[in-house]
Amino acid sequence: MSAGVTRVVVDVMLKPEILDPQGQAVLNALPRLGVSGIVGVRQGKRFELELADGVALDGAVLARVEHLASTLLANPVIEDYVVRVEDASAAGA
Amino acid sequence: MSAGVTRVVVDVMLKPEILDPQGQAVLNALPRLGVSGIVGVRQGKRFELELADGVALDGAVLARVEHLASTLLANPVIEDYVVRVEDASAAGA
Repeated sequence: MSAGVTRVVVDVMLKPEILDPQGQAVLNALPRLGVSGIVGVRQGKRFELELADGVALDGAVLARVEHLASTLLANPVIEDYVVRVEDASAAGA
Repeated sequence: MSAGVTRVVVDVMLKPEILDPQGQAVLNALPRLGVSGIVGVRQGKRFELELADGVALDGAVLARVEHLASTLLANPVIEDYVVRVEDASAAGA
């Protein structure tokens, strides 16, 4: 995305006590790839929300995203989520 | 995860020029939820890799994770990935 775009990131991960078969599958594949030293893998989702031009990143917007995260992006019964603002200039790749 | 665990995070997102139907579905749902001000949504994957105790987080380990990311976690033809070390103490939720 171009510089100057304000991006809010929502990371959604299964709660630690919930079984994560996708992460387990990755973990099981590591020895076959000759990779050691990794004892746990969890797989989750990452959402990048791009705000419209002129929308200031204030508490109201973050509250809206927080509400979205808890109702649409994550299932709070089995998932934890974190909302954070990504510094667009820091995103290299 | 408990404090002191070293965690490496790999974020995998579809390249910007690749169509993202999951993100589009989320975007299309926003007006129905009464949310405005968001003009773009991209959905990707987040992997949390937990290193074994005593494995120092040096360049060799990061190179190994980088290799994993490009061969197992992401498809570099259509996806971008970012490898980063997460400060365990900073992870609140």
